[in-house]
Amino acid sequence: MSFRDDGALALEWAARYLERVGDYPVLAQVRPGDVTARLPASPPEQGEPFADVLRDVDEILLPGITHWQSPRFFAYFAASASEPGILAELLAATLNSVAFLWRTSPASTELEALTLDWTAQLLGLPAGWHGHIEDTASTSTLAALAAAREATGRSVVVCSEHAHSSVDKAAKLLGLELRKIPADDEFRLRVDALDLNDAAAVVATVGTTSTASVDPVPAIADACAGSGVWLHVDAAYAGSAWVCPELRWSQAGVERADSLVVNAHKWLFTPMDCSLLWSRRPDDLRRAFSLVPEFLRTTDEVDSLSDYGPALGRRFRSLKLWAVLRCYGREGLQMRIREAVRMAEMFENWVEEEPGWQVCAPRHLSLVCFRRDASDEENEAILDRVNRSGELFVSHARVGGRYVLRLAIGNERTTENDIRRAWETLRHH
Amino acid sequence: MSFRDDGALALEWAARYLERVGDYPVLAQVRPGDVTARLPASPPEQGEPFADVLRDVDEILLPGITHWQSPRFFAYFAASASEPGILAELLAATLNSVAFLWRTSPASTELEALTLDWTAQLLGLPAGWHGHIEDTASTSTLAALAAAREATGRSVVVCSEHAHSSVDKAAKLLGLELRKIPADDEFRLRVDALDLNDAAAVVATVGTTSTASVDPVPAIADACAGSGVWLHVDAAYAGSAWVCPELRWSQAGVERADSLVVNAHKWLFTPMDCSLLWSRRPDDLRRAFSLVPEFLRTTDEVDSLSDYGPALGRRFRSLKLWAVLRCYGREGLQMRIREAVRMAEMFENWVEEEPGWQVCAPRHLSLVCFRRDASDEENEAILDRVNRSGELFVSHARVGGRYVLRLAIGNERTTENDIRRAWETLRHH
Repeated sequence: MSFRDDGALALEWAARYLERVGDYPVLAQVRPGDVTARLPASPPEQGEPFADVLRDVDEILLPGITHWQSPRFFAYFAASASEPGILAELLAATLNSVAFLWRTSPASTELEALTLDWTAQLLGLPAGWHGHIEDTASTSTLAALAAAREATGRSVVVCSEHAHSSVDKAAKLLGLELRKIPADDEFRLRVDALDLNDAAAVVATVGTTSTASVDPVPAIADACAGSGVWLHVDAAYAGSAWVCPELRWSQAGVERADSLVVNAHKWLFTPMDCSLLWSRRPDDLRRAFSLVPEFLRTTDEVDSLSDYGPALGRRFRSLKLWAVLRCYGREGLQMRIREAVRMAEMFENWVEEEPGWQVCAPRHLSLVCFRRDASDEENEAILDRVNRSGELFVSHARVGGRYVLRLAIGNERTTENDIRRAWETLRHH
Repeated sequence: MSFRDDGALALEWAARYLERVGDYPVLAQVRPGDVTARLPASPPEQGEPFADVLRDVDEILLPGITHWQSPRFFAYFAASASEPGILAELLAATLNSVAFLWRTSPASTELEALTLDWTAQLLGLPAGWHGHIEDTASTSTLAALAAAREATGRSVVVCSEHAHSSVDKAAKLLGLELRKIPADDEFRLRVDALDLNDAAAVVATVGTTSTASVDPVPAIADACAGSGVWLHVDAAYAGSAWVCPELRWSQAGVERADSLVVNAHKWLFTPMDCSLLWSRRPDDLRRAFSLVPEFLRTTDEVDSLSDYGPALGRRFRSLKLWAVLRCYGREGLQMRIREAVRMAEMFENWVEEEPGWQVCAPRHLSLVCFRRDASDEENEAILDRVNRSGELFVSHARVGGRYVLRLAIGNERTTENDIRRAWETLRHH
């Protein structure tokens, strides 16, 4: 079989998968070890046809897939790998560029700068920020905090109790002390409790994982001003919403940040992994990461993006983001973001109007936190039952000491009918 | 246009690219800014057809691509994205799994463990090591050193002066002191100069970046024994060679390591990025990275691979490695590795027999270090001219105080004829 023939099989598999993804149980209905048990314990001696691999993807792996592409995936933050993004990944894998220096992949290096600039324009960010791509927000935040440590020489990172665990992980790796500030009744960092003593950085979250609450960034920026404390904004989920001007209320103060992370693989229709990190202090990022061993010395006199983060080798990740921005355009992105927010509002209304159910946090953007008027245990049992049904996949949070369910809308294939099915299933269980 | 139609265009583009990749100038013949200058400064308002994106990939990006897939790419360490690996990336992007917990992608989590186990068998590694995939060796080494810091509470990392710059980068991030040990005449860490005082870890390199020299791992393991020092082996390039039993001389002592990194995206025909990290002390890796915030709490009672490294979200990277192992089999991998080594030996002989040229380091595996009997400046000028010719791409190292050229063979499309063309071009310039 040729690459063209095998490729046609793979492409047809992908097309059919996307057509049928809504028919599969959203959460994989397997037990630990089920997939492994069906695969040989040792690799083959002779090569096998690609068609056999594809057959086993279908028969053995598929039952063990939790379908992130399903229109009824509502857990964590829902995501979509859009069609142009998927096809761009095929091109990137074909080129196999490794962009650790400008010269090892000029097009990748320059397209990365350009697409970050395009995205900054779409989101209404200040002009002139330096942008590059990391794999995940964990790495972007790690890079920002390493720069803050380098720039300030201080040893404390400050964030709210609702900040993402990636801040804990980065602080631990960097050997920084983490100071968690209590949140107010709406799960926002309490500025009156902010203690910046010895602080290298504050991480403000716009769109927390539990409730999509928005820290008061302008007040935090005021507190940082003049103290030299690095302000890193984690808008991994919510930042994509800024493509819609009416949702930029959540961007207030972000223009004063030293760095900002937005995950294009969360709500900007780009396949994993594509975490966007901007900074207005790129020299500090470089100082934290730049090393020029002999084998990387060139006369190119151009920046290498590997000088801005932990990894040396870098995939051609900008290609998929560029394909999405071009094929959707500003209008296509806005339309999809608005539809997700509209459906979340609709779901919120249904919960509010239904006796025995309640919304548990102010709804921001496309995330609704809710629960049945019952014990935590009963809500946990509801979650367990609906996830086992395969009809939808939701996740939970603990908010104000209570167990709450989260419905996160973000898959571009989700329709009003999917939300309706989800609500019926929830009420049924 | 449907996904099937756009996909057929993308696939045809990929097939033609792979057919013609040997015809393009290997090193991109553009100046900084050339690619950017041809692209619009702002994103489109309305979406555009995918075919337009593909046209611009061809017309605007292609001249700015350095062709890692070219059979005459001999710089750094040559790599290949094989056809099964490329098509598996299409499938992975289609599924868009995010494997931060077992339940968010059981198939990805289990296939990752299985393929690492298969690869360990192929390479003749000890049974029972825990394996997982990171993006690059920089991250794998960072994870290993974080575990060593956690396990020992000590603050020094020791390596040879020829260790990769990723060790410097990881030590800097982790706030560890780096102690570089001088190398012997064959560029191997001098065990008589090894100072393990306060050492958390030693990084031994099997296949250094400059010359593919092999540190004396058995003697280093002896020195570590009983002292509690973590032994991390960086075999990012050379480890793939162990699929051939006759090349396992370079594996001596590795069975005593605490952790080992091998990059499947270097010489195991897997597209970027796919760095394999094994450890026989997985509990220490977990202790360095595991955090279980409320939103990730489940009743699954299964390991999450995100507990073994810095990132939380994880792509379905094992799919491409699995596809390569299945479609090539042990024999196919051995055949390709042996052919690369055979061609390197052939090239080495040509250099040795040619008056006015010399081999500058013992050839190990598929890397030949050589130079013209002339000044460093003249050798640098040769490098510059051959790279500008577009005929081949080679890189350099500084070895024993001298500037040397490196011919690294590793692309599966490279034939004896490509090596012949490379040698003619080098002599001509």
